[in-house]
Amino acid sequence: MLDQQHIQYFKNLVGGEDFFTDLAHLNAYCYDATKERHLPSGVIFPKNEQEISQILKYCNEHRIIVVPRGAGSGFTGGALSVSGGLVLSVEKHLDKILEIDTKNLIARVEPGVINKHFQNEVEKLNLFYPPDPASENQSTLGGNVAENAGGMRAAKYGITKDYVMALRVVLANGEIIRAGKKTIKDVAGFNVAGLMIASEGCLGVISEITLKLLAKPPLKQSAMGVFNHIEDAMNAVYKTMSSGVTPVAMEFLDNLSIKAVEERFSKGLPKDAGAILITQVDGVVKEQIAWQLNEIEKHFKANCCVDFKIAQNEQEEQDLWFSRRNASQSISVYGKKKLNEDVTVPRASLPSLLQEVAKISQKYGFKIPCFGHTGDGNVHVNIMLEDPKRDLEKGHEAMEEIFQAAISLEGTLSGEHGIGLSKAKFMPLAFNHSEMELFRNIKKALDPNNILNPFKMGL
Amino acid sequence: MLDQQHIQYFKNLVGGEDFFTDLAHLNAYCYDATKERHLPSGVIFPKNEQEISQILKYCNEHRIIVVPRGAGSGFTGGALSVSGGLVLSVEKHLDKILEIDTKNLIARVEPGVINKHFQNEVEKLNLFYPPDPASENQSTLGGNVAENAGGMRAAKYGITKDYVMALRVVLANGEIIRAGKKTIKDVAGFNVAGLMIASEGCLGVISEITLKLLAKPPLKQSAMGVFNHIEDAMNAVYKTMSSGVTPVAMEFLDNLSIKAVEERFSKGLPKDAGAILITQVDGVVKEQIAWQLNEIEKHFKANCCVDFKIAQNEQEEQDLWFSRRNASQSISVYGKKKLNEDVTVPRASLPSLLQEVAKISQKYGFKIPCFGHTGDGNVHVNIMLEDPKRDLEKGHEAMEEIFQAAISLEGTLSGEHGIGLSKAKFMPLAFNHSEMELFRNIKKALDPNNILNPFKMGL
Repeated sequence: MLDQQHIQYFKNLVGGEDFFTDLAHLNAYCYDATKERHLPSGVIFPKNEQEISQILKYCNEHRIIVVPRGAGSGFTGGALSVSGGLVLSVEKHLDKILEIDTKNLIARVEPGVINKHFQNEVEKLNLFYPPDPASENQSTLGGNVAENAGGMRAAKYGITKDYVMALRVVLANGEIIRAGKKTIKDVAGFNVAGLMIASEGCLGVISEITLKLLAKPPLKQSAMGVFNHIEDAMNAVYKTMSSGVTPVAMEFLDNLSIKAVEERFSKGLPKDAGAILITQVDGVVKEQIAWQLNEIEKHFKANCCVDFKIAQNEQEEQDLWFSRRNASQSISVYGKKKLNEDVTVPRASLPSLLQEVAKISQKYGFKIPCFGHTGDGNVHVNIMLEDPKRDLEKGHEAMEEIFQAAISLEGTLSGEHGIGLSKAKFMPLAFNHSEMELFRNIKKALDPNNILNPFKMGL
Repeated sequence: MLDQQHIQYFKNLVGGEDFFTDLAHLNAYCYDATKERHLPSGVIFPKNEQEISQILKYCNEHRIIVVPRGAGSGFTGGALSVSGGLVLSVEKHLDKILEIDTKNLIARVEPGVINKHFQNEVEKLNLFYPPDPASENQSTLGGNVAENAGGMRAAKYGITKDYVMALRVVLANGEIIRAGKKTIKDVAGFNVAGLMIASEGCLGVISEITLKLLAKPPLKQSAMGVFNHIEDAMNAVYKTMSSGVTPVAMEFLDNLSIKAVEERFSKGLPKDAGAILITQVDGVVKEQIAWQLNEIEKHFKANCCVDFKIAQNEQEEQDLWFSRRNASQSISVYGKKKLNEDVTVPRASLPSLLQEVAKISQKYGFKIPCFGHTGDGNVHVNIMLEDPKRDLEKGHEAMEEIFQAAISLEGTLSGEHGIGLSKAKFMPLAFNHSEMELFRNIKKALDPNNILNPFKMGL
């Protein structure tokens, strides 16, 4: 609960229409995609960087917790206010694209701009912003930076951190800094922008983002390969990717995921396939597209691909991608609740990872449909619980075994969702005492009073 | 000077053949490419990460300064031991390529591996490591990471930070940490690898580097454009780069640089040209190469390019690049000493930057030949001093004006050389009090006793 004096301060600062402590607002800002609920003590909508600065300065002096929030679409509780305090939302006012600089292929945005809206705006100018998290229609660019969001196009184009050129950040004490430049090369001072990326709101509040853009490739084309055995598909992924062709995306669905989509939508998918791979290439001339598709077909077929289909028009493109786009919602046919994690391994370890998942599925008796971004080794593993009350604890145990398998294959706890709350307890699986201590030291250096999004990341 | 007890400790630890305090060794490790000289108190060559750890633990306990050193080819004094202490050199033992993983397109190396040697080894496997600093034949990958080295291919392929997937680092207290993963996506924990990149040996000693590799593009081709006026060339650069073509490199020489190379080597270069641009494209099919060269020619000619020449064979490739490769040494015709800095601006500001340089040249009466990596806005500005004793102070004043011009054009003090000692005093031009304080807080969090490369970066 906030003292009356604090409530009065915030009301005076931003006005009564941008600060709330009523239950309706607290409820509206108490959840994210984890579906956990943690009521904050207040919700505040700063109008600009100066207001963010004043809020943080005051909160730092009075030891009031601040949880920065974009769209609240995160899967790991990064935007949840687990111990009261203020939710600082950027979605109401800080949603402007400030500049699209077509001469330098750079854009400046406020943190509350929705990813897909930004993609659409730059594409109107024939430019291209590659990071495309599955949440692109909801999630904000500020949240994308704070979580270092990935997406399907990471196989060729990398992830959010590869596009952040500079940030403006309000530190815990209210001071405003700029980190990075509008230049591709900049080696003056520590890489503070790099440190802020993926810091999950624990080190500062991002108030402005400078992003690198690309020219939009004029041509693209997709293809799908069907495999009887998932191991063959996983071998095809890494052998294709290491051969010299760099597809934009290389996505997969396992048998359970294919069947789920088919059950829901009856699209004529190969229900008995061990896995399908869906891929897309892009480029500037048609010969380049043809060369890439030909290479992919060659490597797929060398790994027992039984059917290879190239989309010949926009409708066929849409059809090819339909199963991937609808996999996440379709697998609910297998259970009321899913435990959904995004483990990632080096691509050549994908066959081993999927074998481990199959063993764990068998051991615990859970269906575990998998799909995701195999082009960068990122698998969305979904443990389906038919009876959540009965199965939840066992489900978490099974997930912990999957994490352990990923780590032992030189993989990571999270490829794109972050750690937040949900994976906090698994941090010691991935980091030793010295590494955790270093994280704590960095946190303490930037936020000595621990007001910024505390209790996240296992810190 | 080191106490006898410390000398004995280091001798016992690494053996007498890997620790030295004699003047010959101190002299051999007292300089870098700045040609400044700072004698250390000792030079130590650890054989492995464990020895680095023990050295740092001991030095931290006894407050002995440690300056990590690769090849000593830096331009800003990053490897200079300005206040005694130990130079910790990785060049004798830590020079092994540990793994080239062709399945995952990843390599693991020790920090003392020479950049070009590494490039050559991966190219034998048809792989490609793009960062190519001008020092590639001398500089180490450890030094490249510590300074976030750039190079000519940055226009298309980015810089060192874009290839570092993970690091092993020995912290100031001797603890060994791993940061990052062998996966493209990894969002677990703070981005410590990102923070270590460009930290100039001030935050830890890098003991192992995991690098991303690409498949080697099978085709490449170069071209040269001649312009009467430098402004036309600079306009051609940014208009080409924003049009949708992404050349591997887009380099330039101004009139003074062209004349200097011609005076030295008589290669038939266009001595009256205002500037030349030299560019290279690569790809997988010849139509893609042709499309790119055609786009470049179109944009060059739209910006008053008076001669456009495409290299038709390997010999012509070599000839085209000869002037760029020999610019740096050739400009010594203009003076005994050069003040050489690597300011960088957003590409569209290149015309303005070059105008400012011309004004400053006129104001001070110095010849200031310029060349460099215009594809990423990075210009090597060389103030030539005919009489260094007489002119040095004025030369530094002129350089400060150039820095100010770059900063006012939203550029940076350093595109690739780093800050080190040489640019430390200019840090307040680029960073405000809060930003400098943040750097100091980060430094203190990771190196509380300030033993790691102190007095660098203006900290």
